[in-house]
Amino acid sequence: MKDKEDFLENLFNPRSIAVVGVSKTPGKAGHEIMNNLVRYGFKGPLYPISHKYAEVQDIRCYRSVLDVTDDIDLAIVSTPEEYIPKVLEELGAKGVRAAVISSGRRWSSLVERVADASRRYGMRVLGPSSLGIYSSKSRLNATPIPLSTEGGGIALISESKTLGISMVNYGLSEGLGFSNIIGTGGKADIDDQSLLDYLSEDDQVRSIVIHLETLRDPKGLTDSLRNALRRKPILVVTGSGEVMRRLEPMKKELPILRDFTVAFDLSLVFTGRRIEGRRALVVTNSSGAANLLMGSLEGFNIELATLSEAFLDDIRMFIPEGSHLRNPLDLTSDASPEIVRGVIEGSNMHGDEFDFILLVYCETNPLETEKLHTMLIELKDLVSKPLIPILLGGDSVKRTVKALRSEGIPSYYSITRAVRASDSMIRRLLASK
Amino acid sequence: MKDKEDFLENLFNPRSIAVVGVSKTPGKAGHEIMNNLVRYGFKGPLYPISHKYAEVQDIRCYRSVLDVTDDIDLAIVSTPEEYIPKVLEELGAKGVRAAVISSGRRWSSLVERVADASRRYGMRVLGPSSLGIYSSKSRLNATPIPLSTEGGGIALISESKTLGISMVNYGLSEGLGFSNIIGTGGKADIDDQSLLDYLSEDDQVRSIVIHLETLRDPKGLTDSLRNALRRKPILVVTGSGEVMRRLEPMKKELPILRDFTVAFDLSLVFTGRRIEGRRALVVTNSSGAANLLMGSLEGFNIELATLSEAFLDDIRMFIPEGSHLRNPLDLTSDASPEIVRGVIEGSNMHGDEFDFILLVYCETNPLETEKLHTMLIELKDLVSKPLIPILLGGDSVKRTVKALRSEGIPSYYSITRAVRASDSMIRRLLASK
Repeated sequence: MKDKEDFLENLFNPRSIAVVGVSKTPGKAGHEIMNNLVRYGFKGPLYPISHKYAEVQDIRCYRSVLDVTDDIDLAIVSTPEEYIPKVLEELGAKGVRAAVISSGRRWSSLVERVADASRRYGMRVLGPSSLGIYSSKSRLNATPIPLSTEGGGIALISESKTLGISMVNYGLSEGLGFSNIIGTGGKADIDDQSLLDYLSEDDQVRSIVIHLETLRDPKGLTDSLRNALRRKPILVVTGSGEVMRRLEPMKKELPILRDFTVAFDLSLVFTGRRIEGRRALVVTNSSGAANLLMGSLEGFNIELATLSEAFLDDIRMFIPEGSHLRNPLDLTSDASPEIVRGVIEGSNMHGDEFDFILLVYCETNPLETEKLHTMLIELKDLVSKPLIPILLGGDSVKRTVKALRSEGIPSYYSITRAVRASDSMIRRLLASK
Repeated sequence: MKDKEDFLENLFNPRSIAVVGVSKTPGKAGHEIMNNLVRYGFKGPLYPISHKYAEVQDIRCYRSVLDVTDDIDLAIVSTPEEYIPKVLEELGAKGVRAAVISSGRRWSSLVERVADASRRYGMRVLGPSSLGIYSSKSRLNATPIPLSTEGGGIALISESKTLGISMVNYGLSEGLGFSNIIGTGGKADIDDQSLLDYLSEDDQVRSIVIHLETLRDPKGLTDSLRNALRRKPILVVTGSGEVMRRLEPMKKELPILRDFTVAFDLSLVFTGRRIEGRRALVVTNSSGAANLLMGSLEGFNIELATLSEAFLDDIRMFIPEGSHLRNPLDLTSDASPEIVRGVIEGSNMHGDEFDFILLVYCETNPLETEKLHTMLIELKDLVSKPLIPILLGGDSVKRTVKALRSEGIPSYYSITRAVRASDSMIRRLLASK
């Protein structure tokens, strides 16, 4: 039996992979996973295993892992459920170190048979019914989801495979980047604990979203969550009353959400700069939008920064007539991106008066939004405090928000989501004090 | 002075329009509004008023409304603030029946001057700082927002102009259709009450979203809201503590929201078929997604329908092996759109056992989503009870949801938003009993 780190290295960073049950039919898991492994650029040797084909994707097939002469670190299994036990015996005999069982059901006698094979051969197994495994660092995409992005800072652990596919696709459509994706499925062997331990040590991981339906070892999981929370923010997605009850005592530091779209919005804020206090400077081109933000602060750990006269004097020169010189700084709808830039750069000299900036910008002209986008990217390294853009409008705004996110600037197109996300970062800061 | 209905007819359905302060500079309100009036196909005569141009959009300009010989029902004013009082005098002298003041500020002495001119001339005025007026029925788009859709069932009243533009663009990007858009702005004359009275009588209006920041006449407004609520669902968007306190007693029937994206999601459900009870039949291809839905029901007026043995027997033939024959009906990830269709058609025979269907579908293959889309449109007229699709996934799912919405099928890509929307319809039903 290998030690903990070692076995997860075989999963996240294997040197060679066998894909058992490959297919040439688009839409079938055995086709999609093989295709994604090749297209995402896995560097080591791939061994497709098939009784039917001599090659797939121009790569020679073997009839069994036993026919492969080289070592195999990881096997991905997507055969029909009835063949899984036999496949596991062959993997064990071959000395394969780790396996991901993509096929099969979560609630069936299969789970016990997989667990048994895992124990007998000292082979660590994810699944059955695993969403698969993805690691952007290792150029490893052994999931049915075609990922083409360069990755990012969010790690996702999903118990459900079907929902997991939807969650990842939703995340991608929102401009989120994943460092790791892991499907725990039936949890016959590898459970959430060891994954949390591993991911919380990974520098690339900025936050962890975990979908939980069942708890094999509630005490072990809460211990492991508590440990991991010291290093990384974690967001739990669950519909299970039992999971909610068990994790309830931790809810101050551990958001427990029924809505994965909220979990992703919260996880995103941690991919940006750290907020070091609760005082917000609000800059806006719409008093109406700023009022909605003010009305949304109740119950959250955000307060409006009190601005000094010196601060207001210094930015007076940048702002349009009719602006309100107080916090929120309402620059009126005449505020061009250049004016917004002037005010934000001007605020740099008084960075001790606030901890972060919320920019609430209503799109009134799509051409300006493009300029705003460029300006926000340039400002990224010029502002002394974290700046969270909240851009309100239609399709062009959503595109800009998505682009900013993938450029490492957590941005939002909903005021309340941005408030909730900022709050979850501040909450973590306050808990650590 | 005209009676109530009459003056609003001049706003929503004018026979002729003067546009005061037209411009040829794209991005300027005087350009955008004129452009939108022409492009959206207003049928009556348009009289651009300008000191600078002889024509705009190939339409002859006049130097003043006083130079126009024909009657003018409605004037749209977008001149700089300092000219507004003089313009109002000319409109009054001409006998113009209604005016929309698009320019100017909401909190300034202008508001009193506008109110005064309105009283003296018996001319009804929207604004200043009005988002403008849009009526899909009258092919009237006197707003700075280019609308190209055929309209829909949602009426929006917005106090803020800048935020209003963002709200409309957001709504359009989400597939929402508007019957009317009205910017109240500084409310110098026309207030929310008369607009609510008018819109609540309009058959095309299915729900009303109203953005409120200030209350001129709290008692009048609550009376008017109570009256209008008897005919139409209303959703209030506000960040104002005072508005919230004043409307608090009505909150059971009147959702008061800080987040306009939520208000739109709720307003949308009323554009579909009426839900006549609280018993939901949940059909899904993902137990994980169904579990999230179950976990989201707490606190809402939705209960799971109890299905009879006869019901389950009748649909047994349609469903894949491994499906769970209970509510939620988990058809497993093997469920093709054809299987979903079979089950939903099968449920028709037992329509007395449930009041509406929530279909929770995870996209695992974008090709299937297209089929699902077609199928849902075909099913629209075949299902005995309202069916609310909740489609979970990425870009292709969002496109499908948007298309379904514009085809009159309220659909969602967030479970909790769909639950909240269904609840708000059921809540209205229960309140009416």
